[in-house]
Amino acid sequence: MANSTSGDSSLDRLARILGAFDADMPAMPVGVLAARAKIPLATAYRLVDQLVGRDFLRKDPAGKLRLGLGLWELANRSSAALDLREAAMPFMEDIQAVVGQHTQLAVLRDDEVLFIERLSGRDSVVNQARIAGRLPVHRTSAGVVLLAFSPAHVQEAYLRRHPDAALPGETGAAGFRKVLALVRAQGFAAFDGLVDEQTTGINVPVLGRGRVAIAALGVVVARNEVQRHAILPVLMTGARGIARAMGESPG
Amino acid sequence: MANSTSGDSSLDRLARILGAFDADMPAMPVGVLAARAKIPLATAYRLVDQLVGRDFLRKDPAGKLRLGLGLWELANRSSAALDLREAAMPFMEDIQAVVGQHTQLAVLRDDEVLFIERLSGRDSVVNQARIAGRLPVHRTSAGVVLLAFSPAHVQEAYLRRHPDAALPGETGAAGFRKVLALVRAQGFAAFDGLVDEQTTGINVPVLGRGRVAIAALGVVVARNEVQRHAILPVLMTGARGIARAMGESPG
Repeated sequence: MANSTSGDSSLDRLARILGAFDADMPAMPVGVLAARAKIPLATAYRLVDQLVGRDFLRKDPAGKLRLGLGLWELANRSSAALDLREAAMPFMEDIQAVVGQHTQLAVLRDDEVLFIERLSGRDSVVNQARIAGRLPVHRTSAGVVLLAFSPAHVQEAYLRRHPDAALPGETGAAGFRKVLALVRAQGFAAFDGLVDEQTTGINVPVLGRGRVAIAALGVVVARNEVQRHAILPVLMTGARGIARAMGESPG
Repeated sequence: MANSTSGDSSLDRLARILGAFDADMPAMPVGVLAARAKIPLATAYRLVDQLVGRDFLRKDPAGKLRLGLGLWELANRSSAALDLREAAMPFMEDIQAVVGQHTQLAVLRDDEVLFIERLSGRDSVVNQARIAGRLPVHRTSAGVVLLAFSPAHVQEAYLRRHPDAALPGETGAAGFRKVLALVRAQGFAAFDGLVDEQTTGINVPVLGRGRVAIAALGVVVARNEVQRHAILPVLMTGARGIARAMGESPG
């Protein structure tokens, strides 16, 4: 795309504008947006006008800017996330109905866990995962499962970039590798209080070619949840179903 | 954004590129993309490179282009659709669990019905609605409900732009207005075989300020569904819950 005098492309600016919005800051005046997107105010006014015209952004009744439905529609008409979600949804609904707690689906992305879908009941436990939100790999059982079922070179690259990554009961890279091997051997990850003191995340991999995880399927339950051993087979069966629906042969 | 010599802005080109993908054509080679987006091939190559770099597009194993997870993530971290979905999801799950058929949420957009969410069981009836997909207003009970609970000037503008719009059993604009008034009076729309011969859509409005619909909540059931009169109260209760969760006082 065309470059400004600073060598900044239109696409860079657009990505910074759209990236300025998140669940913690879903609405802001144009001045705040310009500052967050690191764009001169006059330029921001012009771009915002164009983006509002396409409903990529919209003005709320208070005059603050928000992401618009136009962008949402374009991104959700077809995408890898949607394919995965479509395949997973019937299985996730069944699991959520049986387990009655948060049921979620995540992928690995830029060394983080990106949540694609989350189903929650009204009386579910506290949960920090949000749809299209991210959490650190080594702070979530979904992340540990995704990394455990990644090729060795991906694991090693992660450890190089995150030398301080630690898991409960283990220290250092050697301890981390030990946990990954254990998770891989047992086929799931379940950690108490990793994200929240009161909760346990239980995750299994959705396996693709070469037994690499294409996603993690999991639930977040109360830490003293007694049915833990009943939940695992449910997750494992669901993960195989999702893999099959995605056209993978579930290992 | 910067304009090309044709007066076409970067944003226009970007919107045409992203808009070239839909559920019927989720993947295509760059040549097809250039043609669909009406962009010269050389320009398309350059833009595609930039978009792949940001994961707004990605290349699948066959070398075809698809929408990438980067765009999905930006659009889904915060948006009007997500707010509505978040508020509606627990109610939709309950309805889907009880009714056991497609449960969906739609909004009015550019004279069409845009589906925000759809929950379906594995044995649900045939259904043409797709998430982020659109259907004509006067061909869906969701659309009729949304229009019936729109201000009069919106209804009249729709009729002016769609003089051929017809509903079962009525002809012409007068007949259309009669149906809208009836739907408004009874508080729901239920049409047999409007989208598919074998199915019935039953929809109620989620009401915001001034009793204008902010969304339509509905189910698609088999046409000979006997529980129809048991479904309506479930939908109406759910719609009030969604309105309340959105901060509206449900009329």
